[in-house]
Amino acid sequence: MSGSQLLDRLIKALQVQPSIGPRSACRIAYHLIGRKRAEAAALGKLLQEAAENIRECPVCRNFCDQELCALCADPKRAASGQLCVAESPSDVEALERSGEYKGRYFVLHGHLSPMDGIGLEELGIDRLSAILSSGSVKELIIATNPTVEGDATASLICSLAEEAGTEKITRPSRGVPLGGSIESTDQRTLISSFRNRSALR
Amino acid sequence: MSGSQLLDRLIKALQVQPSIGPRSACRIAYHLIGRKRAEAAALGKLLQEAAENIRECPVCRNFCDQELCALCADPKRAASGQLCVAESPSDVEALERSGEYKGRYFVLHGHLSPMDGIGLEELGIDRLSAILSSGSVKELIIATNPTVEGDATASLICSLAEEAGTEKITRPSRGVPLGGSIESTDQRTLISSFRNRSALR
Repeated sequence: MSGSQLLDRLIKALQVQPSIGPRSACRIAYHLIGRKRAEAAALGKLLQEAAENIRECPVCRNFCDQELCALCADPKRAASGQLCVAESPSDVEALERSGEYKGRYFVLHGHLSPMDGIGLEELGIDRLSAILSSGSVKELIIATNPTVEGDATASLICSLAEEAGTEKITRPSRGVPLGGSIESTDQRTLISSFRNRSALR
Repeated sequence: MSGSQLLDRLIKALQVQPSIGPRSACRIAYHLIGRKRAEAAALGKLLQEAAENIRECPVCRNFCDQELCALCADPKRAASGQLCVAESPSDVEALERSGEYKGRYFVLHGHLSPMDGIGLEELGIDRLSAILSSGSVKELIIATNPTVEGDATASLICSLAEEAGTEKITRPSRGVPLGGSIESTDQRTLISSFRNRSALR
C-alpha cells in the first residue's frame, strides 16, 4: 500500500503490459509520478487515443488510423506487384524493420486453428482471394510462421493463389539463424537447412 | 514503421517507462492494441488522472490524492508514536510491503546533495523539525539508504532530533542480506556486520 489509492490502482493497471509484474509496475509508477509526470500524462492520452482509433486497414487488415494504412497508401508499394502475407501486425513491423521488403502486406491476424474456431472467415481469406483474383499480384510471399499451423495456413493460401493464377508464389527461407550455432539448432531446422543448401561456388 | 502513425507514436511514448526499450515497447503496444484494448484505455485514463491528481501529503510528503495520505490518515499509525524517515515514496512502499513497521513516515524526496542543489529546504527539513518539536514522536527511525549521502543526511536528522529532545533515535541494521553469501558481500558491509554482531546465546 502506498499513501494514495490512485497510485495503487495505477500500479495494478500497469501490469496489463506483458512481462510487467507487480515489482516492475511499482518501479514504473514511482518513476513516472516522481520524475516524468508530463510524459506519463502524454502516454496516457496516447493509450486512450490508440485504443479508440486504431482499426484494421480495409485493404490489408494491418493496424491503421487513417482511411488506409500507411503501407497501403504508398503508391510505390502497390507498383511493386509484391504481396506478403503475415500472421500478425507485429510480424509486419519486424519485416519492415529488416528493410529488405518494399511491397504490400496482407495480415491474417492468426493462423488456421479449427480447435479455436479460427477458420477462413477469421483470417479474411475472402478478401485475400479478391486481391489475388484482381491480377495485381505478381509475386505472393507467404511469410507465416514456420510452425505446423503456419505451414498449414501457408499451403491453403498457396492453393488459392494457384487457382487465381498468381505467377510466383514464394516463402522466406528456413535454416540456421545468423549468429546461431549448428549445435544448438533443432533437428527439423537442420534437416530443412540441409535439403535447401545453396551452392557456395 | 507500422501501418499507423498513432501506433508508432504510442511505441515511442511507452519508452518513457524505465527499462522499456524499443523492442519491448513494440511488443507491449501490439499486445495492448491487439488483445487488451479496454484495459489499455483504462490504463491511459489512470495515467492521466494520476499525473494530474497525485501530489505530496502536506504532513509527510508521501504521494497522496486526498487531503492527507492514507498512512497519515490512519489514527493507529499516529498513536504508535513512531516516525520513519525515508528517502523516497518507493522506499515507503518497500517498507510497507515488509509489513514490519506500523508507524508514520516522513519522505525526504532525496538526500543531502549540495552539488545538485539539494539542501535542507528541498528535503522539507523545516517540516520534519516541526513534527519533532511537537513532541508526538517517541521513536524516530532514520531509514535513509546506507550510502555516503544517505548517512550524511541521517546524521543531520539525528542532530535535529537530539535538539528537539526525541527520546529514541534508531536506524535499520546493516549487514549481510538474508539469502546472500559472505563471499559476495562487500568489504564495508562485512566490517559493519562484524562490528554489530549479535549474541546467538
